[in-house]
Amino acid sequence: MDFAPELITIGQKAKDAARKLAYAGTAAKNKALLAMAEALLNHEQKILEANRKDVEAAIQKGTKKSLVNRLALTSEGIRQMSDALKEVVNLGDPVGEGEFWTRPNGLRIQRTRVPLGVVAMIYEARPNVTVDAAALCLKSGNAVILRGGSEAIESNKILSKVIAGAAESQGMPTACIQLLENTNRQWVQQLMKMNGYVDVIIPRGGAGLIETVVKEATVPVIETGTGVCHAYVDGEADLAKGVSIVFNAKTQKPGVCNALEAVLVNEAVAQEFLPLLGEKFRDYGVEIRGCEKTCAILPYAAKAKEEDWGIEHLDLIISAKVVQGVDEAMDHIYQYGTKHSETIITENYTTAQRFLNEVDAAAVYVNASTRFTDGGRFGFGAEIGISTQKLHARGPMGLQALTTMKYMVYGEDHIVT
Amino acid sequence: MDFAPELITIGQKAKDAARKLAYAGTAAKNKALLAMAEALLNHEQKILEANRKDVEAAIQKGTKKSLVNRLALTSEGIRQMSDALKEVVNLGDPVGEGEFWTRPNGLRIQRTRVPLGVVAMIYEARPNVTVDAAALCLKSGNAVILRGGSEAIESNKILSKVIAGAAESQGMPTACIQLLENTNRQWVQQLMKMNGYVDVIIPRGGAGLIETVVKEATVPVIETGTGVCHAYVDGEADLAKGVSIVFNAKTQKPGVCNALEAVLVNEAVAQEFLPLLGEKFRDYGVEIRGCEKTCAILPYAAKAKEEDWGIEHLDLIISAKVVQGVDEAMDHIYQYGTKHSETIITENYTTAQRFLNEVDAAAVYVNASTRFTDGGRFGFGAEIGISTQKLHARGPMGLQALTTMKYMVYGEDHIVT
Repeated sequence: MDFAPELITIGQKAKDAARKLAYAGTAAKNKALLAMAEALLNHEQKILEANRKDVEAAIQKGTKKSLVNRLALTSEGIRQMSDALKEVVNLGDPVGEGEFWTRPNGLRIQRTRVPLGVVAMIYEARPNVTVDAAALCLKSGNAVILRGGSEAIESNKILSKVIAGAAESQGMPTACIQLLENTNRQWVQQLMKMNGYVDVIIPRGGAGLIETVVKEATVPVIETGTGVCHAYVDGEADLAKGVSIVFNAKTQKPGVCNALEAVLVNEAVAQEFLPLLGEKFRDYGVEIRGCEKTCAILPYAAKAKEEDWGIEHLDLIISAKVVQGVDEAMDHIYQYGTKHSETIITENYTTAQRFLNEVDAAAVYVNASTRFTDGGRFGFGAEIGISTQKLHARGPMGLQALTTMKYMVYGEDHIVT
Repeated sequence: MDFAPELITIGQKAKDAARKLAYAGTAAKNKALLAMAEALLNHEQKILEANRKDVEAAIQKGTKKSLVNRLALTSEGIRQMSDALKEVVNLGDPVGEGEFWTRPNGLRIQRTRVPLGVVAMIYEARPNVTVDAAALCLKSGNAVILRGGSEAIESNKILSKVIAGAAESQGMPTACIQLLENTNRQWVQQLMKMNGYVDVIIPRGGAGLIETVVKEATVPVIETGTGVCHAYVDGEADLAKGVSIVFNAKTQKPGVCNALEAVLVNEAVAQEFLPLLGEKFRDYGVEIRGCEKTCAILPYAAKAKEEDWGIEHLDLIISAKVVQGVDEAMDHIYQYGTKHSETIITENYTTAQRFLNEVDAAAVYVNASTRFTDGGRFGFGAEIGISTQKLHARGPMGLQALTTMKYMVYGEDHIVT
């Protein structure tokens, strides 16, 4: 493949930076992060001006209001980005952690965490991802190539310039943080194939973006995202818990990957449970798309089509199905789930254990909302995304997901016999 | 992509088996492994007969003698395969291991090792890989689809039939071990694209096989193999250690990925070191392909071409270069290495530490042979391959590399606020 010469330059600069960053100390990286936090506050006016251009362009293009809102920055928003950088300072640095052992022949083997190298982030609207991703990559010793959406280009340009400048002023290697200022399709397609320059690609955004990257990239990808999450309300559920958890998981923030998309209800409790839940949903404006039995119990439910089962609504819509028991529920999840987050509501110990053991997903819950699948809520302090793949990282990814291992082996004239 | 219906059947059967294997207990899996070990011994004659067909076909096709040797089984070889199965019984089962913590809100999070699901192994000549791979996958709770080379098909058919039968007789799920009996190209190409059926593909074999799989697979791959390994003999090296380690790493088993392919010699010691090493190599029949300076010192060395630097000779050939110091050595390794195994011979503490920290490879050594990069020699007990990628697993892969994590979360009516 022929790469744009500018891209090769960016890739080579990132590689050179990564080679130096790999052995930068935690104290030096933290100093840079604090300078970046400070620099954001010092450049507030410039950032707001640039962001205004993006927002105006979006409005002129007739962009949906919710998207314009995701794009828009305020003084408060800049302060939050700056605070987020300071929080990254407080996170433990995984680089240099590890364990060691000594072999019978005296060879000492040290398994050490090291950075991945060059991380490319491909993301959409929200400019704060520029700052978050750069901070997490820097803290974990990786050079980063940021490729944000064209709709946020002016904001991303000034943000990356300000933070990269601050990091470099504190001795971090040149080009440790780079933004692809050219947001055309060709460049991003080439970026996904730059094996030898880029060690991993992390797409963050809608299902379409992620699918494209997974399909087209030859560089290893950490897939984030799509969550078709289910709640199974068992025949032995505490129905009050069922209502509160299902309602919370669906409505607390419907546009995110750990929000609930479908509820499966044991037939033994359907007659009692569905009206309790249904009325709460109806009052809140949640559309229910139910199976035949659900619709028979809830006259205001719409009839679910086949495509309603495997879908991520990301909206105030929920699919609902009456099932015979935990086996049918687990079969349904196996067929339609995306292995993200699944929860069971039950008071039965053995049924709970079966669900935990037998459902294959990044996170499996008993009597808790799927919305907990989150780096912050799991206690990792920060999150680079939620992996829905099984290799390398699964579930909420903290700094450790941005590292690999290296074996350092100390010999004294050791040979193999 | 349209898949052969037989392949879909195999994939679906593997998925069904994996779902059950995921929560099979260690004791049950060990019982199956012991039965497999026993069954191999009980079917010795049948196995030897089938293997004879493969060997005769290979000889008739004019196959190289070294390849025929790799293919041929003996009674002793079958006993070794059986013993290897018993050793897998003694390995710790990573499934179900993990740690847990409790969040301030009382939510208990249990990070648990679980199997990957369905593992596809694509490999070449040696029939013992059929048994090894099946055993390691079974022990780690994965269903396996084996695709060995056509040259070993008769041996692989009987071996997989015997061990799968023994495993199933002990209650392991049907189709936990399957062999692709059809070894045509179309099937293997389709297998690499069976996302949704296959969770990971592990190619084991020559560089050509691995490259094809990495390029064509859409299923996640764990890349194994290619090693262009270097030894840097520093200006402050103990030259006797240098000779013994470089000689060992090159000649102890030249056809494997952790064998040495190039030696870099500090100019301060080249005049003294190269003749010591060179004569030992000359006596042993190792061809030296040297840079100009090397050839000036060793008149019997051949002149290295540019392509001699990044190459895996896998033979009694070594590239040799005189360098100014550790920086030039590390630059050379950065440019030509494959991030597998690299070693420095030095008595200088600081130079050793710089090499360990700054060289990016799965295993980095001081005063030891690169031949130690091996699951057995690292103390992992068994090895499914040596990963040369950075994601998921790096270096020698034990059973843990065949697992992923799952978060089991225990709530008591927990919702997100």
